[in-house]
Formats: sequence, structure tokens, C-alpha cells
Amino acid sequence: MDKIPGLTEIKRAHTRISKYIEETPVLFSNSINEMVGAKVFFKCENFQRGGSFKMRGATNMIMGFTPEERRNGFATHSSGNHAQAVALAASLTGSKAYVVMPKDSSRVKIDAVKEYGAEITFCEPTEQARKKACDEIIEKTGAVFVPPFDDYRIIAGQATAAKELIEEVHELDYVISPVGGGGLAAGTAISASCLDPTIKVLLGEPKNADDTFQSLKAGKIKGVKNPNTIADGLKTTIGQKNFEIIQNYVEEVITVEEEEIISAMKLIWERMKIIIEPSCAVAFAAVLKVKERFAGKRVGVILTGGNVDVTNLPFK
Amino acid sequence: MDKIPGLTEIKRAHTRISKYIEETPVLFSNSINEMVGAKVFFKCENFQRGGSFKMRGATNMIMGFTPEERRNGFATHSSGNHAQAVALAASLTGSKAYVVMPKDSSRVKIDAVKEYGAEITFCEPTEQARKKACDEIIEKTGAVFVPPFDDYRIIAGQATAAKELIEEVHELDYVISPVGGGGLAAGTAISASCLDPTIKVLLGEPKNADDTFQSLKAGKIKGVKNPNTIADGLKTTIGQKNFEIIQNYVEEVITVEEEEIISAMKLIWERMKIIIEPSCAVAFAAVLKVKERFAGKRVGVILTGGNVDVTNLPFK
Repeated sequence: MDKIPGLTEIKRAHTRISKYIEETPVLFSNSINEMVGAKVFFKCENFQRGGSFKMRGATNMIMGFTPEERRNGFATHSSGNHAQAVALAASLTGSKAYVVMPKDSSRVKIDAVKEYGAEITFCEPTEQARKKACDEIIEKTGAVFVPPFDDYRIIAGQATAAKELIEEVHELDYVISPVGGGGLAAGTAISASCLDPTIKVLLGEPKNADDTFQSLKAGKIKGVKNPNTIADGLKTTIGQKNFEIIQNYVEEVITVEEEEIISAMKLIWERMKIIIEPSCAVAFAAVLKVKERFAGKRVGVILTGGNVDVTNLPFK
Repeated sequence: MDKIPGLTEIKRAHTRISKYIEETPVLFSNSINEMVGAKVFFKCENFQRGGSFKMRGATNMIMGFTPEERRNGFATHSSGNHAQAVALAASLTGSKAYVVMPKDSSRVKIDAVKEYGAEITFCEPTEQARKKACDEIIEKTGAVFVPPFDDYRIIAGQATAAKELIEEVHELDYVISPVGGGGLAAGTAISASCLDPTIKVLLGEPKNADDTFQSLKAGKIKGVKNPNTIADGLKTTIGQKNFEIIQNYVEEVITVEEEEIISAMKLIWERMKIIIEPSCAVAFAAVLKVKERFAGKRVGVILTGGNVDVTNLPFK
């Protein structure tokens, strides 16, 4: 796939993955609606298989290959949800998964990747070491690399979350997702554009890792040096393909402070009784930050994942 | 209502409360199904308004009065979910709620009762002090007492949770709920009996507060002295009306240890990404304890509530 996915590609992705993923529920909370002054619909990808939306993109890519092409397995490097997604998606096709994880990855995430049957290689916690270890595995095994976000097949897969949301909840005025590498953000933007161009797409980003915000301002990709945020899934710099889509289809990036992320996360735990991870709370933190603009509107929020170590929480 | 509720009364309760409660979702988890070796369907009353199933019984009772009869408001004593339910149900009819809470009740629960607009009276943390304070309020105000469980109107209201579960998920072999005072337990038993008598009803109870288990053995109600369990909602002794129903309609009470409760709670948090309170985990702990008997079966579990202080969790 060498062009920006359109409705055909998103629909094809959805058909391809539908047997392997959950059509996650859309939930709401009366007390949150009152607090925001809007109708807020939460698309619960925290309930997705593998614990996050990442399962959609990884499954779309892996299922797009023939059994012959899948023979040597799949490889990726990730400390988080993408690792789990590739491990699980590969196991569903009976393929081998090789996952390079930084040696300081959380025990919970390592255990989950192991449980899905992937072969883990630990490396130093640098981008360079991760890529090197992954390249070596690919050379040795002939495994296919599954990129985390900068790929149209991944973007088309992630786009199916917003597709389900928009098809279930009519007449949304806004859809908002967090942005890290931009797989979900770009997918959400193209889904909205294809299915209902009147929907405005917003993104939430941690102030401490605001590469997408800065990149849009500069008109080109700008990384953030040593981003330090509790939203660990959003530290990555936006990908090239992702950036191009976001430039064209996203209305605005709203940045939020660390304490706003934690407080939004706690609010969702307490009011909705569901578990979301810090990265996931960023979109809702952005909604709370600029809630005036949503007065009386219908707002879809993509809750991205729920993989969090419940023995180590940021709540005071 | 002076006789055990049948299908007519349960249906009437459901119609009466349906505008005021959520029809909560039924969720499942592939990994939990694999772990148990059965299909386990979780009825998520932790998503109920007020945070627990208690909203059903309180609403059924309060909405059963005429506006004239509701004029002097409602009173109850409770440190937990029943307090929140009465406060919220009363506020939905525009009635006043008087809630007596032991002065050592958790801050989170006190705040929730306040937020629903109830007038709180604090008392010493003994059963006697609670009753005395509540009686005084009733004498002064003419408020109607809303009993927590030993009442057919309350039982018929709680029965609607199992009714929704059984109507949504066909061909269940078992339904299991926790048992404290027995409002939900008795309601679940009569719903199953009315709607599908082939369903076996089991109850989970903390070993450290096993009054229902002991009472069934003895053939009469036996209290447990100073029950000490993390499942704080299940410390109460079974009520008379509840006991009579349970004697006739429940197959067995399965008791579980404290560590089994905490471990079942953690499993549901981690695998299902939903927040449940310790009392709520007791039914699933019982399922895990005797999982052999569920091999290949369809098992409904009522998740009772999600009111937990997320800053103070029992996980290590």
C-alpha cells in the first residue's frame, strides 16, 4: 500500500481483521457529561485484545500476507503495546514473533508478550540498540518487520477504531485521540474524513513530548529531546506518513500537562470504573482543558489502552 | 409486598426502574475463559449508576411510592453502596435523603453520598448507634426507612440484574453472585427460578464472614462475630426474608479466603480492564476455586460494584 488509505482500504482492513479483534464497546458517563457540558462517547480500545488499539494495525499487516509469506515469522521492537499486539497477532496466524524489548521494560509487559508465545530479545534501552537487535534477528531469520506506526497498512488498521465509533455514534461533532507516533491519530483523521467530513479531528499530546504540536507549527517534523512524560506510549516522534496525514486532516493538537493527564486518568477510573493507562488519558485531558468549545456538542474520545501495572499507580 | 416476588413482581420492578438505571453491559474475556475452561459472562453492575447494583433495589422501593408518600423523604443507615444508592434514587425523584453513616466510613463514599445531595448524619461505628440515629431522624422528619436487603421490594429490584443477564445470555448453566445481607443473592435466585429453572444458582461468600454458609448448615440464621474481611460489603448477616429464599432456591454457598478474593480482583482488573471492589470479586473467586465443575459450561457472574478508593489498593 503506497498511498494514503481511503475508504476502500479502511473497509478492507476492517473486514480482514474483524475475526481477530473485538468490536469494542462505546461507553459514556452521566457525571462526565455533566462535568464537560457535552455528550462524550468513549470508544473503549482498552478492552481490545492485547489491551490496546495496536492490535488492529498489527493484525491488518500480518493478515495481509499469504501463509507462504508468513512462514519466517514477524519481528518488531517495542517496550509496550505494539510488542503485545505483534506477539498476539502473529500467534493467531500460527506465525512466530520475535520481539526486541529494552531491558528496562515493565515486568507486566514482558510477561504479556511471553504469554502470547513470542521470542523476546532484550537490549539496551536506546532507539539505536533496539533497531540493531531487530535488524540482526531479521537477517538471521528472514522474519518480516512490523513497523509500529509509519506504514499505511498500520494506519489503515488503526483507522478501524474510529470507523466503528463513527458508525455506532451518529452526528459526532468532534473525535479526539492521543498522538504518539501517529498511527492511531492518522487513522482516526482519515476515517473521519472518509465517513463524515463534518467531524473535526483533534489530538491530545503531552506538553512534555509535544513533537507533533511543534512539527505542525514548524511545517516539518521536529523531535523532542529526551521526552519525559508519564504517558510512556506517546514519547515517540511522529512518523513521516503520519505527519503528512495529520497536517492535512487534523484541526488542532492540544497539549496537556502531566498533572492534567493523571487527573483525567483518575477521573475515568473513578467515574467509569474502567482501567486506562496514562497515555490513554491524554485525549480526555485535552477535552477537559478546552471544554468550553464542546458545549452542547457530541464528542468521541478514543480510549487507546489499558495496560498498566496496577501495583504501581500514579494516584495520590 | 408481603410475599416472595415472582415473575410479575420482578417484571414490574424492572419497568418501574428502567428509566433511572443503566442496562449494564455483559462482558467476557478470552483469557479468563481459557483459564476457567468455561464461558464466563460478567454482568457489569460496577458500571451501574451509583457504582453498584444497590441502585436497583433502592430505586424500586422509592419509585413505588406516590409523590405524596415521598414528601417527607427517605432515610437509611449504611457505610457503603446502599447509602449512595438511596441518596441518588431519592434525588432522582426530587426527594430528600437522610443517610446515617458510621464516622469511620471512607472519604470516597462520604463524598459520593454528599454529591448526590443527601443529608449525612455521622454516628459511632456500631450497628446499634446506626439504628438509633436513623430512628431519631425518622421520628423527627417522617422520612420513610429504606432497608438495605431484608425487604421484598428491595429483593425484587436487585432481581432485575440477573433478569437482564439471563435475557441477554441464553442457555446459562450457572449464575453466581456474592452474598452479604442477601438482597442480590435472593433476587438472583428468584430471577433464575422464574426465567429458567434449569440454571443453578451459586453464591460466593468470604470465609471470614460466612454467616450464610453457616446458617444454611444450621437451618437457621447464625451471625458471625466481628467478621473481618476485605470484602466490606459482605460483613452483614443474612436477612430473614433473604435466608428463606436462599434456602429454597440456591444450590450451594462457596466460601473463599481473603487472598483468593484479592487475587480474583486483580485478575479482573488486569484481564478485563475494569474496576471492581473487593466484595464484587468474591463471586469470581468462588468460580476459580471450584472451576472443575464448570468445565465446558456457560457461567454468569454478577459483578456487583466498583466503588473503591483507587489511592488505597490491596495489590502487591
